[in-house]
Amino acid sequence: MKTLAAQVITPEDLLNHWQGHRALTRRVIEAFPEKDFFEFSIGGMRTFSKLTDELLAIAVPGLTGIVNKETKPFTEDSEKLIFKAQYLEKWDEATAIINEYWQKLSIEDFNETFNLFGQYEFPVIQNILYFIDNEVHHRGQGYVYLRALNIEPPFFWER
Amino acid sequence: MKTLAAQVITPEDLLNHWQGHRALTRRVIEAFPEKDFFEFSIGGMRTFSKLTDELLAIAVPGLTGIVNKETKPFTEDSEKLIFKAQYLEKWDEATAIINEYWQKLSIEDFNETFNLFGQYEFPVIQNILYFIDNEVHHRGQGYVYLRALNIEPPFFWER
Repeated sequence: MKTLAAQVITPEDLLNHWQGHRALTRRVIEAFPEKDFFEFSIGGMRTFSKLTDELLAIAVPGLTGIVNKETKPFTEDSEKLIFKAQYLEKWDEATAIINEYWQKLSIEDFNETFNLFGQYEFPVIQNILYFIDNEVHHRGQGYVYLRALNIEPPFFWER
Repeated sequence: MKTLAAQVITPEDLLNHWQGHRALTRRVIEAFPEKDFFEFSIGGMRTFSKLTDELLAIAVPGLTGIVNKETKPFTEDSEKLIFKAQYLEKWDEATAIINEYWQKLSIEDFNETFNLFGQYEFPVIQNILYFIDNEVHHRGQGYVYLRALNIEPPFFWER
């Protein structure tokens, strides 16, 4: 029955949308030379490794927090990664965990208010859109770093 | 009845989400010095005025195309703006038109496939998420331009 089932976006499509962005961000990490990933920046901004620290500290801890209703504070201090390969490995682990935890969200859950990281009290859908937007925002900055390094970034529409 | 009404995201909240991003982009345009808006760039990329041309050429033409089921090709050549104030004025006109046309979309419409600009054949929801993501992506680049110009950008979470 169409009117019962109709969604602006289904949970499955929103997950694919997020993971599509995450796959693109992974390609941006790959595009950085090892040294520049940890050292290059513009205008006093964070390096792309530091920005990736933030993205990793948000995605799985944020989603598992939502699912488990845990409001642990935000932290980027879990472990210190020093090679790009470690970032890519952690990225792939996060991909699998996100896919697993996503299945535990019902449509109603997206409308529940949740105090993310004990600090951001918003409906779950807004928290998740923030995860995605924040990643697109910082990845856009990574594109400028790559261009400034004379490296062609991956196509934005390739997911 | 909750199960009938429950949405991952409602059309109204998705509109607010988009317009929140557009309000932030407007503040980024405002933050640029007049000259730098038209001339500054990094690594051979487009200036922020050129990026704004693209955003303006997507938002209203894209949404009205979806609503009117018109597949006119994408073009940025509608008119040549030469002052930041003209961009801000056109931005505000777009804000009002988006609000108006959004009301014509039913929940079912978001799942219809549409050949955007006669070129991108996807469900409407994917087209609209692309409008938003593309704006966040390019605005993130604008943040780097501002930082390189030693200008503090607006807070990302301020909508």
